[in-house]
Amino acid sequence: MSSSRTVRRRLLRVGEGVVQWRGDDVVAEEPLEIRIGGQPVAVTMRTPGNDFELAIGFLVTEGLVQRPEQVRTIQTCAWKQSGEFNVVDVVLSDDAPRFDPAASRNFYTTSSCGLCGKASIDAIRTRAQWPVRDDPLRVGVAMLQSLPARIRQAQRVFERTGGLHAAGLVDSAGALVCVREDVGRHNAVDKVIGWAATERRLPLRSHLLMVSGRASFELAQKALMAGIPALAAVSAPSSLAVELAEEAGMTVVGFIRDGGMNVYAGAHRVDTAAESR
Amino acid sequence: MSSSRTVRRRLLRVGEGVVQWRGDDVVAEEPLEIRIGGQPVAVTMRTPGNDFELAIGFLVTEGLVQRPEQVRTIQTCAWKQSGEFNVVDVVLSDDAPRFDPAASRNFYTTSSCGLCGKASIDAIRTRAQWPVRDDPLRVGVAMLQSLPARIRQAQRVFERTGGLHAAGLVDSAGALVCVREDVGRHNAVDKVIGWAATERRLPLRSHLLMVSGRASFELAQKALMAGIPALAAVSAPSSLAVELAEEAGMTVVGFIRDGGMNVYAGAHRVDTAAESR
Repeated sequence: MSSSRTVRRRLLRVGEGVVQWRGDDVVAEEPLEIRIGGQPVAVTMRTPGNDFELAIGFLVTEGLVQRPEQVRTIQTCAWKQSGEFNVVDVVLSDDAPRFDPAASRNFYTTSSCGLCGKASIDAIRTRAQWPVRDDPLRVGVAMLQSLPARIRQAQRVFERTGGLHAAGLVDSAGALVCVREDVGRHNAVDKVIGWAATERRLPLRSHLLMVSGRASFELAQKALMAGIPALAAVSAPSSLAVELAEEAGMTVVGFIRDGGMNVYAGAHRVDTAAESR
Repeated sequence: MSSSRTVRRRLLRVGEGVVQWRGDDVVAEEPLEIRIGGQPVAVTMRTPGNDFELAIGFLVTEGLVQRPEQVRTIQTCAWKQSGEFNVVDVVLSDDAPRFDPAASRNFYTTSSCGLCGKASIDAIRTRAQWPVRDDPLRVGVAMLQSLPARIRQAQRVFERTGGLHAAGLVDSAGALVCVREDVGRHNAVDKVIGWAATERRLPLRSHLLMVSGRASFELAQKALMAGIPALAAVSAPSSLAVELAEEAGMTVVGFIRDGGMNVYAGAHRVDTAAESR
């Protein structure tokens, strides 16, 4: 195994009268352990590449890094026997939030019997430090419709494997400023947000986050933690993603395909003037 | 919020000259806390429904339940203020594995610097109690090709929302014995395996698990933990899913679409006779 983004495999192709052994590229998936000052915080199964961005994006969207300046050093170390680089250790400054393993385990839970979507939303809203409600971003329908194809074009690994999720960051002028791919959709989003953190672009005011698949609560939460006022998805959003967006004043657009789209929350940011004419 | 599988939302439909407010169903997503004897084990964001199956399937695929008989009672309790049923508490018999929160946090990690895909595979292989290598299952190409449409037909919620993953269990005669849907693909698989556990069908010898999206390491791991010898996916598998399958003797088929498919591991179980004629 190597730390590249694809792995060459031998496979049996079957169909339309053909049965044939051939070589093909498969998307790489490997564990990455994220540590703070040597202490394990999480293990994620990810596609190798942009690991520093992934680690920093994860820490930002979990609220463990509030400002990029809190990252003092970041380094990787290899697993002894394999030479793979599957650990990223981040050393934070003293003013960063303290990581408490016990608290992190019970992030969603309340002290009463159980939890609910409302409690999850409240927990995120408490953590989010950059309000998005009054963000002046406006997005045009034609720009939104162009995004899936533009992101697909920027996905270099998808082209070869067909097996990756993508996340793309769009600025207020409609420019696609960053695209990242991963076998896990949450990782693709963390990589984009981590990129923005290392570029000192946080909070991502007046940016839109586009994802290749569905828009779940987790992705809406990550967008909110980075101060992103708009989330767009090729496919469906979940109820809790829409509810979080509504309570936070974030825009959610889904089903951007076949010449149409659905706006589930924050419709005031979508400029439909060209459509209604 | 209610504990149904869909939530009615008002949305702005935009496209092809139309800008119109309308009602539509969105797939429900709510947290579920899984407890063992009152102690929180995990929180998963899931689509409500089949929650007992989800909890038991999760415990089986995490190795915390080895035999369905170890489940003594299973109950749900509602969050006080909302009346939602978002906690499932499972009481296990004394001979069930002990849940150790500290160990579970570091499931993939090793004591040396980091971890790697090989270590992840070894960890799963150590936990899996039902070998699948010698399973005599054979699957035909036509049966595999028929699965995506058959599962789609059985997906009642997808029809209305377009927002769910599905997992289906197929027996050795090619019959689809169980289909479950969820906003999270791992939950859909846990629900199917939990259904099998409550039906006293574990291990799932000579069964095939079909999933609607990609085949990741996590899904291959869950199949292996339930003794399932074959995993099929509409889309691409990851490198680590294929490697785990190869080491365990499991069959992996991907890209079942457009009249063809790729067999990535365990090709001896795929009967291609009709194709080669």
